Amino acid sequence: MATTTETDAMRRAIALSARALGATAPNPVVGAVILDASGAVAGEGWHRKAGGPHAEVHALRDAGERVRGGTALVTLEPCNHTGRTGPCAQALIEAGVARVVYAVADPSPTAAGGGATLRAAGIEVESGLLAAEAEAVNVAWLTSVRRGRPYVRWKYAATLDGRIAAADGTSRWISSAESRADVHRLRAEADAVVVGSGTLIADDPHLAVRGIDGVTQPLRVVVDTRARITAAAPVLDDAAPTLVAVGKDADTAHLPGVDVVRLPYAAPSARGGEATGAGEAASGLDIDALLAELYARGVRSVLLEGGPTLAGAFVAAGAVDTVVAYLAPALLGAGPNALADAGISTIAQALRLDVTDVDRVGPDLRVTAVPTAPQES
Amino acid sequence: MATTTETDAMRRAIALSARALGATAPNPVVGAVILDASGAVAGEGWHRKAGGPHAEVHALRDAGERVRGGTALVTLEPCNHTGRTGPCAQALIEAGVARVVYAVADPSPTAAGGGATLRAAGIEVESGLLAAEAEAVNVAWLTSVRRGRPYVRWKYAATLDGRIAAADGTSRWISSAESRADVHRLRAEADAVVVGSGTLIADDPHLAVRGIDGVTQPLRVVVDTRARITAAAPVLDDAAPTLVAVGKDADTAHLPGVDVVRLPYAAPSARGGEATGAGEAASGLDIDALLAELYARGVRSVLLEGGPTLAGAFVAAGAVDTVVAYLAPALLGAGPNALADAGISTIAQALRLDVTDVDRVGPDLRVTAVPTAPQES
Repeated sequence: MATTTETDAMRRAIALSARALGATAPNPVVGAVILDASGAVAGEGWHRKAGGPHAEVHALRDAGERVRGGTALVTLEPCNHTGRTGPCAQALIEAGVARVVYAVADPSPTAAGGGATLRAAGIEVESGLLAAEAEAVNVAWLTSVRRGRPYVRWKYAATLDGRIAAADGTSRWISSAESRADVHRLRAEADAVVVGSGTLIADDPHLAVRGIDGVTQPLRVVVDTRARITAAAPVLDDAAPTLVAVGKDADTAHLPGVDVVRLPYAAPSARGGEATGAGEAASGLDIDALLAELYARGVRSVLLEGGPTLAGAFVAAGAVDTVVAYLAPALLGAGPNALADAGISTIAQALRLDVTDVDRVGPDLRVTAVPTAPQES
Repeated sequence: MATTTETDAMRRAIALSARALGATAPNPVVGAVILDASGAVAGEGWHRKAGGPHAEVHALRDAGERVRGGTALVTLEPCNHTGRTGPCAQALIEAGVARVVYAVADPSPTAAGGGATLRAAGIEVESGLLAAEAEAVNVAWLTSVRRGRPYVRWKYAATLDGRIAAADGTSRWISSAESRADVHRLRAEADAVVVGSGTLIADDPHLAVRGIDGVTQPLRVVVDTRARITAAAPVLDDAAPTLVAVGKDADTAHLPGVDVVRLPYAAPSARGGEATGAGEAASGLDIDALLAELYARGVRSVLLEGGPTLAGAFVAAGAVDTVVAYLAPALLGAGPNALADAGISTIAQALRLDVTDVDRVGPDLRVTAVPTAPQES
């Protein structure tokens, strides 16, 4: 059983891990705290970016000699493999810790097994302490490992009646300044921000994170089947890297020097069996292929910012892991909806969700929800 | 200053008043508690239905002789006029109370002045105790007095993306059993339940209150411009009274014995100045005329149950006082929206609301919101 001191230390380690959300891809976020033999905090650290030292190494360095006979609290099972850095299990053994407590087991085939290595070296090992809290912070990475594709958080801002713009297309601003600032936090925690060409044309967004110091800018991704983007689009500036995903035979001669990926088109009726009458998934590109491309580029968490057509294609592909809806207390009665054709034609096919959080953000509501059933990927 | 005992008694009086919501039209709901000279509760009562004794009279009867030298706590200023019952101010004077505390002043021109009458008789009078709580329970009646038309609560049930049915029209069930039961409570608290002919044709609703004992059934109102309802419609059964509102020249020969009111058509562009391109208010009937007719029939609170076309006409007419949205955690991506054309064409015209309550009802969210600016009536 973990002591109260150890629980407090794990809570601190989880908070430390969260500091690097959005900065560690393709790695998870990890925090570590070292207690000395007397139970006093001797060191702490967190993984800051891929290729840099792991959390345990930062914490061991911070603790120095005090680590001998002490306890390491780590949010994720210490890794067992030699990647760009050495295995953390070995580092803990060599440093002379007597006990290791980790929150969540490492599900990745290459890095798992650290717990067994530690035990074999005679170290007392315990797992599961504050596992739910640690998993919540690492949900994107853990989900991406499990599904073999990036974790997708779909964010939209709409009126209470579900409109993302008025009939004439105006949308500035539906949601409050507080909600818009909150979206920059979501962007900062993501490895990639994805929009469709409809949103690009309607809003000409920049998509970089503003207002957060020291942020690792996410990859900006434009899903632009027919390559309609112009070379002068703000999203192509140098504030952050940008990827333009186009159809396999799109003409991209007007985009020299732009990072372009060619993807296959979506198969008709992406949601399977039922003939919907609504025809093919409207987005045009194959969502699984898009996510595979992003995963291959190291993206583990995606913030899908719309618009409704692309969101519909993601829903139809079973590729939405979390919905974050900013609902502004306003009514429009006309204008585009937050979600367009997702291949759902009758009530029994509705994508059912569980609401996990409801928060007030300024005058708005932020509703966070996850699909009730595991999504096919 | 009111004592703690008096505050507790007023809270009890407010709770008693709420028992009769939906049963007292065209009167307000009122509760009363009598404390004897020592401060002990001597009697209590509430107004149960129009034409029956007022709350004060019930409480005075309950207290008997103990009222002499005591204090009456009443949620609304005692009335000063002789309607179907005598004036309560006079009854309190004759009963020998020493002190009267009321929560909210009576805004109606015929009944106001009770406080002054009591003071003139040498009784100590205080007002404003728990006024906000008392007003909240009586908001429908107080608003109807202020606006000269029934108070309108618009209720809808939609998915998180604002759809009230799937693309094929199926909608059973979008919201949970808990939410649907909650709607019966809203119906029970209303004097009239209003739907449009689109909802009538799509859902063939019954609209009577089920599952609540001793309820006063609200008047069922069908807004049916072209008189498309059939004589066999469930809403025309004898479970509750029903009014069918039709256009002034509609053919109603197929509806013998049905209570029909003929109303003028809505003027084009009900929301004023802007040419919307969306054309006339879609509902067909003049909403102000409809509300005037209901008011004349004693209706003080309306539960507007839709559908989207009628709701749009109410919003366009500035006739929605409260929105109660049951948001089911589900996505559809297609299907009709909760709110159709409300004459709003650009974001600056959006009807802005303040969220007053967010509650979980089963798996759903219930969002209650009121327009930020006073509505024109």
